[in-house]
Amino acid sequence: MYPIKIIIAGPRGRMGSEAVKLVTNTEHFQLVAAIDHKYDGMMLSDVEGFHAISNVPIYTDIHNCLQNVGADVLIDLTTPEVGMHHAKTALEYNVRPVVGTTGFSKEDLEELQQICQEKGLGCIIAPNFAIGAVLMMKFSQMAAKYFSDVEIIEMHHDQKLDAPSGTAVKTAEMISVVREAKKQGHPNEKETLQGARGAEHDGMHIHSVRLPGLIAHQQVLFGADGQTLTVRHDSYHRGSFMSGVKVAVETVVDQNTFVYGLENILG
Amino acid sequence: MYPIKIIIAGPRGRMGSEAVKLVTNTEHFQLVAAIDHKYDGMMLSDVEGFHAISNVPIYTDIHNCLQNVGADVLIDLTTPEVGMHHAKTALEYNVRPVVGTTGFSKEDLEELQQICQEKGLGCIIAPNFAIGAVLMMKFSQMAAKYFSDVEIIEMHHDQKLDAPSGTAVKTAEMISVVREAKKQGHPNEKETLQGARGAEHDGMHIHSVRLPGLIAHQQVLFGADGQTLTVRHDSYHRGSFMSGVKVAVETVVDQNTFVYGLENILG
Amino acid sequence: MYPIKIIIAGPRGRMGSEAVKLVTNTEHFQLVAAIDHKYDGMMLSDVEGFHAISNVPIYTDIHNCLQNVGADVLIDLTTPEVGMHHAKTALEYNVRPVVGTTGFSKEDLEELQQICQEKGLGCIIAPNFAIGAVLMMKFSQMAAKYFSDVEIIEMHHDQKLDAPSGTAVKTAEMISVVREAKKQGHPNEKETLQGARGAEHDGMHIHSVRLPGLIAHQQVLFGADGQTLTVRHDSYHRGSFMSGVKVAVETVVDQNTFVYGLENILG
Amino acid sequence: MYPIKIIIAGPRGRMGSEAVKLVTNTEHFQLVAAIDHKYDGMMLSDVEGFHAISNVPIYTDIHNCLQNVGADVLIDLTTPEVGMHHAKTALEYNVRPVVGTTGFSKEDLEELQQICQEKGLGCIIAPNFAIGAVLMMKFSQMAAKYFSDVEIIEMHHDQKLDAPSGTAVKTAEMISVVREAKKQGHPNEKETLQGARGAEHDGMHIHSVRLPGLIAHQQVLFGADGQTLTVRHDSYHRGSFMSGVKVAVETVVDQNTFVYGLENILG
Repeated sequence: MYPIKIIIAGPRGRMGSEAVKLVTNTEHFQLVAAIDHKYDGMMLSDVEGFHAISNVPIYTDIHNCLQNVGADVLIDLTTPEVGMHHAKTALEYNVRPVVGTTGFSKEDLEELQQICQEKGLGCIIAPNFAIGAVLMMKFSQMAAKYFSDVEIIEMHHDQKLDAPSGTAVKTAEMISVVREAKKQGHPNEKETLQGARGAEHDGMHIHSVRLPGLIAHQQVLFGADGQTLTVRHDSYHRGSFMSGVKVAVETVVDQNTFVYGLENILG
Repeated sequence: MYPIKIIIAGPRGRMGSEAVKLVTNTEHFQLVAAIDHKYDGMMLSDVEGFHAISNVPIYTDIHNCLQNVGADVLIDLTTPEVGMHHAKTALEYNVRPVVGTTGFSKEDLEELQQICQEKGLGCIIAPNFAIGAVLMMKFSQMAAKYFSDVEIIEMHHDQKLDAPSGTAVKTAEMISVVREAKKQGHPNEKETLQGARGAEHDGMHIHSVRLPGLIAHQQVLFGADGQTLTVRHDSYHRGSFMSGVKVAVETVVDQNTFVYGLENILG
Repeated sequence: MYPIKIIIAGPRGRMGSEAVKLVTNTEHFQLVAAIDHKYDGMMLSDVEGFHAISNVPIYTDIHNCLQNVGADVLIDLTTPEVGMHHAKTALEYNVRPVVGTTGFSKEDLEELQQICQEKGLGCIIAPNFAIGAVLMMKFSQMAAKYFSDVEIIEMHHDQKLDAPSGTAVKTAEMISVVREAKKQGHPNEKETLQGARGAEHDGMHIHSVRLPGLIAHQQVLFGADGQTLTVRHDSYHRGSFMSGVKVAVETVVDQNTFVYGLENILG
Repeated sequence: MYPIKIIIAGPRGRMGSEAVKLVTNTEHFQLVAAIDHKYDGMMLSDVEGFHAISNVPIYTDIHNCLQNVGADVLIDLTTPEVGMHHAKTALEYNVRPVVGTTGFSKEDLEELQQICQEKGLGCIIAPNFAIGAVLMMKFSQMAAKYFSDVEIIEMHHDQKLDAPSGTAVKTAEMISVVREAKKQGHPNEKETLQGARGAEHDGMHIHSVRLPGLIAHQQVLFGADGQTLTVRHDSYHRGSFMSGVKVAVETVVDQNTFVYGLENILG
């Protein structure tokens, strides 16, 4: 079975170029082609930044690519629209897709699930490939079954515009699924400075810290009589996503069903 | 089925007296008897510290107790020797035991497992009832599948004599089960002050901090390219154990098998 | 000079009883009298909880006490009104006061300062005797000279009614004295859940976490290009205040000026 | 007085190139020349990486440079040998040196101190320019006066060869100056796994954590009855050093004495 033969769509993007590095540096992976909206018919080694990578043809048309190249997995790191098209087409050709995107609609996901079921093929769609962050969310959900009091503190650089972070909200949503619903804090608590108790999601509180120097950090803090339990993830650079892509590729080749979210293959 | 009828063995001990509080303060629990080596035939309300607790007879003989009192669960917080005897006897009378002890031998555990299997009864033996600590260990084991680099830092008050703590060693053992074996750190790393890199267990490093003011804390730190994941438990007082006893009682009544370790019923 | 002869006012209060323990357990301290609103003419050893403490007479009238007992220092742990009266009276008799209270008015403080100056005597009034908390505030103020971006996260048990905590607000006020004024965070930042960015004090953000299990904790987080600096205090029980009382007594005996705030004698 | 006119020695080094960025991006600083062992007579804008920087001549000879260019401060980021020569020569020409190096001998430092005293000029030699790290050490020293129990935990990436880190040892040395000497931990404590209690420096314990993903972090943990105080520094990238260089330049121009160590100008 090894090496796993891989096509990468979007090789020149921020994530895609990291994926090219991952695949070419992993012994049991083999990069067999790239899909790009430019450079049809050229080799990846002809493109700035990839001169050292040999024998990887570039295709602009995915059908053309899949007809000419034998592959096990397609890693797609493009956009939601393109990614949906790529995922469906890959499955037609019996190639299993691993797609990193946050933008698929409920209908898209159902359609992919249907195709996977009919063809008995695996497919992994993951909005977040940072294993550490995904484990943090998964552990938080597990802990919330036993600790119904929880606060989320997320910390990012001060160039971030939105608060709370998407990961914080996702964490709160995952906790809400299992947590006994409740309004936390003392019923008579009072803010003498407005906002002190943070944002509220379903009775939980979320706090957003923004400082220069910080990168991307989150801690989830559970409290109960006489004890606290903390789960924390610190992300220092984009390379942290690649371990998740690796696990997804290794998992999807043996899989015959559709999976949404890395948390469902970890554990 | 509710309330769950409960006998407590060892009601006057440090853990036992907390258990009496737990059972009498939980709506769907009912304390129906106590087993003690003293005060046979008296009521628990006659004993110092329990004056407010009505209708709970004390027995010194467990057979006598089980013949006279209908119960679902026996909570035993005595000693390993007594606990083993109590657990076996309870199962004879179709009462499910929940036992908190670290001292059972391998033979004891196998014998109890055998009895449970024959009678189709549940039984939970737990060396540690602090749910937060047990989840910390369980999460650490789960994370170690994806992060093979891990260090454990445990922190306790400076009256603690042994280092590392039992929980730290147990955590390392649980991690070893799933972790790809490896010697961590740089192959050429060098201690300029002996002991700086801590203790070693199967290639992992363990650090023991001892300071006045501290109580009982542990953090497990995983690192990978560009990210770290931390799981931390802080224990402030003994009350933290009771949430684990509660979950064990609620679980054992529906269970037909033997379970060793709270981590196997949390999930 | 040793032992330092000490009178304690309010020996039966929560703080006062800890102070009695401190003074009687410290070799170079000597408890020479107690001032209480009850038990005039009795000995402290006649009072519940103090049976082991010998040779300490109780006075209800401070003049009577100071005329009969030679003392170096008065530790007052009563109320603001009584404390002010006690402090002034002690200074009349050349006894240096150490007073733990938050309630003195600006006029009170000025009056005491005046008396100290006239008589060339020391006096220490401290709203907070927890050295760790006072150092946290002092270090935060020092750091703010170099790091103008700071957020405060305070964490308390969920029975606390007010948010943010008094210590958090005091910390922010101390930082404001030295910090280059600025509105932190991105100018265009946006809360998608209201309150996420916490409370604001002079452009700084304060976050209040409330969970069962927590006791009293605060961390002050400074960020700058490529680095963060964190100062954190964890308070686990009331005994933490006594090290501050000890330092205050040891300091005041050599002092000829009025001091408000423990931070001004730590250095 | 403004702008402060600055010469940078070693502009092409890792630290030097950051310093060029700092000086040219700071409004009240002006880069008037560079000293390099190459490119004599050229302009800095002719050198790779500095094309956008105009009007900065390069000199290989420091005398030649100082005779031709009017300057207030020399920032030297070369090597200890060259740095010593540069510092002495700059002082001859009444230019105040700011030197970042760890390698000066005791004799070097005394010689520079002597020259500064004779000429009434300021000079700052700093082994560490990261203000956050320097404040962490300074605060640790201050706290150690009141908390005699302390442990140091330093955490670095796993490519670091030596343990403990230089900063950890320096911190312990600074603490030793003020801390009441004592052997910490319980007198009868026992390592069941060797090294668990870490390295020992003067009775204090130091722990070195090494994990991929980590960068450079240290926390200093003080404990006393009922409380802990933590000071922590996280360094994410080299830019963190430049805020210290900036403060040193701003300070040295008004200074008439020799200073060793950034901690002595932060206050």
